[in-house]
Amino acid sequence: MVIPSLIQHKRDGHALQPAQWSELIREYTGGRVPDYQMSALLMAVVWRGLAPEELAALTDAMLDSGDRLRFDGFAMSRVDKHSTGGVGDKVSLLLAPMVASCGVAVPMMSGRGLGHTGGTLDKLESIAGFRTALTLQEARAQVERLGCAMLGQTPEIAPADKRLYALRDVTGTVESIPLIAASIMSKKLAEGLNGLVLDVKTGSGAFLPQPARAIELAQTMIGLGQVRGCPTVALLTAMDRPLGRACGNALEVEEAIEGLSGEGPEDLMEVTYALGVEMLLLVGAAKDAADARSRLEESITSGKARQKFAQVIEAQGGNPAVVEDPSVFPQAAEVEVYRAPRDGVIAQVEPRRLGQAILELGGGRRAIEDEIDPSVGFVIPAKPGQRVRAGEPLASVFARDPDGIEIGLAALREAIVIKDKGRLTRLITHRVTSDGVTQLT
Amino acid sequence: MVIPSLIQHKRDGHALQPAQWSELIREYTGGRVPDYQMSALLMAVVWRGLAPEELAALTDAMLDSGDRLRFDGFAMSRVDKHSTGGVGDKVSLLLAPMVASCGVAVPMMSGRGLGHTGGTLDKLESIAGFRTALTLQEARAQVERLGCAMLGQTPEIAPADKRLYALRDVTGTVESIPLIAASIMSKKLAEGLNGLVLDVKTGSGAFLPQPARAIELAQTMIGLGQVRGCPTVALLTAMDRPLGRACGNALEVEEAIEGLSGEGPEDLMEVTYALGVEMLLLVGAAKDAADARSRLEESITSGKARQKFAQVIEAQGGNPAVVEDPSVFPQAAEVEVYRAPRDGVIAQVEPRRLGQAILELGGGRRAIEDEIDPSVGFVIPAKPGQRVRAGEPLASVFARDPDGIEIGLAALREAIVIKDKGRLTRLITHRVTSDGVTQLT
Repeated sequence: MVIPSLIQHKRDGHALQPAQWSELIREYTGGRVPDYQMSALLMAVVWRGLAPEELAALTDAMLDSGDRLRFDGFAMSRVDKHSTGGVGDKVSLLLAPMVASCGVAVPMMSGRGLGHTGGTLDKLESIAGFRTALTLQEARAQVERLGCAMLGQTPEIAPADKRLYALRDVTGTVESIPLIAASIMSKKLAEGLNGLVLDVKTGSGAFLPQPARAIELAQTMIGLGQVRGCPTVALLTAMDRPLGRACGNALEVEEAIEGLSGEGPEDLMEVTYALGVEMLLLVGAAKDAADARSRLEESITSGKARQKFAQVIEAQGGNPAVVEDPSVFPQAAEVEVYRAPRDGVIAQVEPRRLGQAILELGGGRRAIEDEIDPSVGFVIPAKPGQRVRAGEPLASVFARDPDGIEIGLAALREAIVIKDKGRLTRLITHRVTSDGVTQLT
Repeated sequence: MVIPSLIQHKRDGHALQPAQWSELIREYTGGRVPDYQMSALLMAVVWRGLAPEELAALTDAMLDSGDRLRFDGFAMSRVDKHSTGGVGDKVSLLLAPMVASCGVAVPMMSGRGLGHTGGTLDKLESIAGFRTALTLQEARAQVERLGCAMLGQTPEIAPADKRLYALRDVTGTVESIPLIAASIMSKKLAEGLNGLVLDVKTGSGAFLPQPARAIELAQTMIGLGQVRGCPTVALLTAMDRPLGRACGNALEVEEAIEGLSGEGPEDLMEVTYALGVEMLLLVGAAKDAADARSRLEESITSGKARQKFAQVIEAQGGNPAVVEDPSVFPQAAEVEVYRAPRDGVIAQVEPRRLGQAILELGGGRRAIEDEIDPSVGFVIPAKPGQRVRAGEPLASVFARDPDGIEIGLAALREAIVIKDKGRLTRLITHRVTSDGVTQLT
């Protein structure tokens, strides 16, 4: 295959043949197409986009570059949830045990923090001993036994995506809806699912802040799921403020456990229930939304979901005592309260600034080899629209040392904007299915 | 410098700072920026173009990556001509000795054949012993002594361009007017010129067939020449048919010598004189166009230009006897006449098809290490608009063996189209200067 001609063809706005995409990805993964040709082609894709047949072929090629979770002879339905990433988004930690408690299996493959956003794997690893690097065999066995496993992308899953993602990261070719969709779906389709629910974030703290772009991404992924036999539904949820109160790895797991104990913050629970309802409906595990909701609520009031989380933690080598006793978590050496500098109404709690501060505090990675301090972060009960008085506590900073406290307080001063008025935007704004987009009111 | 951010900035349609271009090219040439980042950036440039300040900075950076011809203390004006490439274009071989005979120095740095087009260096090397790999010192000494040297791009000249060009060639990023302009001008500005004349080809056999794109390229290069103190003028000339009659390395040198002997084909001489007039006017070596033209004609009628060519050949190790006796050239083993298959008018003599056939005959390179057979090619006196009768000789094929003759005849059958009518388009269509574009009528 003559790579420069393929690049020129894409550059000039034409579609490549599906077979050309398959061969290209195979040759690239085999080391027979150099990175410098692939990166030029990726930039041409950012420019020209991908036709639906190209996108499907690229996704298939990345999926087929590796192995997948196989559930032959396993009767239970499987469903998963994927979020496009945000600050304070600990929904996966609640949903996996809740849905598994309702009798639907959740083989959840998650990622690490990226840029200013947190990652489920990093959060889970704040539980001492928790092992996310399961093999495909271990994952299948655990899903069969407990109905749930929470693991990272194994080396066997979509290795072509792994290599392409690393290349995109350093060549300015991340921000492309078809490339993002192909990357996510090549991994999700490897989970052997019967349904997938997407939480597509919008607002200043999201990778695609504009609802129109978020809807385009949702529809692209829904289309890919549909042709590959994995019914997919998306909700658009607000990431113009953090979700829940806790931002930071151990702090977020603690809040998730509060949620599983019936004491979660309202916004976190609203998003969790809405996504959970979609998960149960997708695989026919409830007769309607009300039934799905009551099953999910029952998983919490009965204590089953919390018990399920403890079982998963224990099965994956972690200390299940964290579920009963938050003092088992790594504790920050320094804690300081941030108070309102003036009377007024909270106009903004800017998630991107807070996510960056967590990185600065040591709670995220700037390079692949960085070690994370799970104890650092913020707890921010304050929300936009709330009236406050000068001196009133709005948030707490958790840090390793006094310098960290200063970094955290500075971030809060910038992120929490107090004006004369302000309002909380709607939390869940759109529902996207293969039938179309519904704006929720 | 954070390369991914620079790539993203360009990708999103913003200009980079001139200092960023300088540093980028320096880091790339030093091996500290990998090819895969540069190729993604180049594709973003193909997409978004370059602002004038970016283009100037990139050209300067490539120029400054190497050395240049230095003419300190040398009183004679220097001028050169650059053609964007075509089939049968042997103008440089005539112009260099003609202009040098008029007392203006020509330090001519030329290239090799590229794609379907021929290259001056390959043509010169059909003269046994001719050495084009002069050092900068040898070139300067020869220009001082003879007023003329004809050499290849030395390793010291614009090494960054050399590396970038090789990368563009394999990543689908050749076809960009600013990148083409920067590449050409970084080399031409290294010749230490007082003026530069561009022959920008248009029509089916040109790299940019559309006049509008050719004018854009001309204006881009003229702008670069102007800010760098090298006044530049361009003529647009027709490459919808070969220039002159001979196509192929030795055959073209022979025709150039005929031209220097006062026996060149009319179209070849028209383009040669027009470009030569611009060269003399640019450096003030003639009082007006008529004066320039008569000096150039006199360089031929007096035999001075032909003698100058013989001196240059001798100085560069070639056999000057070729100037007197064409039988000294390598001769093709097989020659065959192609005759008109029907009565009619020649509607087309398609240069691209003929250039590709010369490659197939062994007269050009498909890979960098290919050896060229200088003897092969075509002589095609037929021109569009000419009325012909069936059986009338239209062209000759020169080949190594009978298979080559078949290849050549097949190419002529496709390239020379006979219809009921046809016409010769205008040879020189536009003159472009820093003041604007004049359409010639």
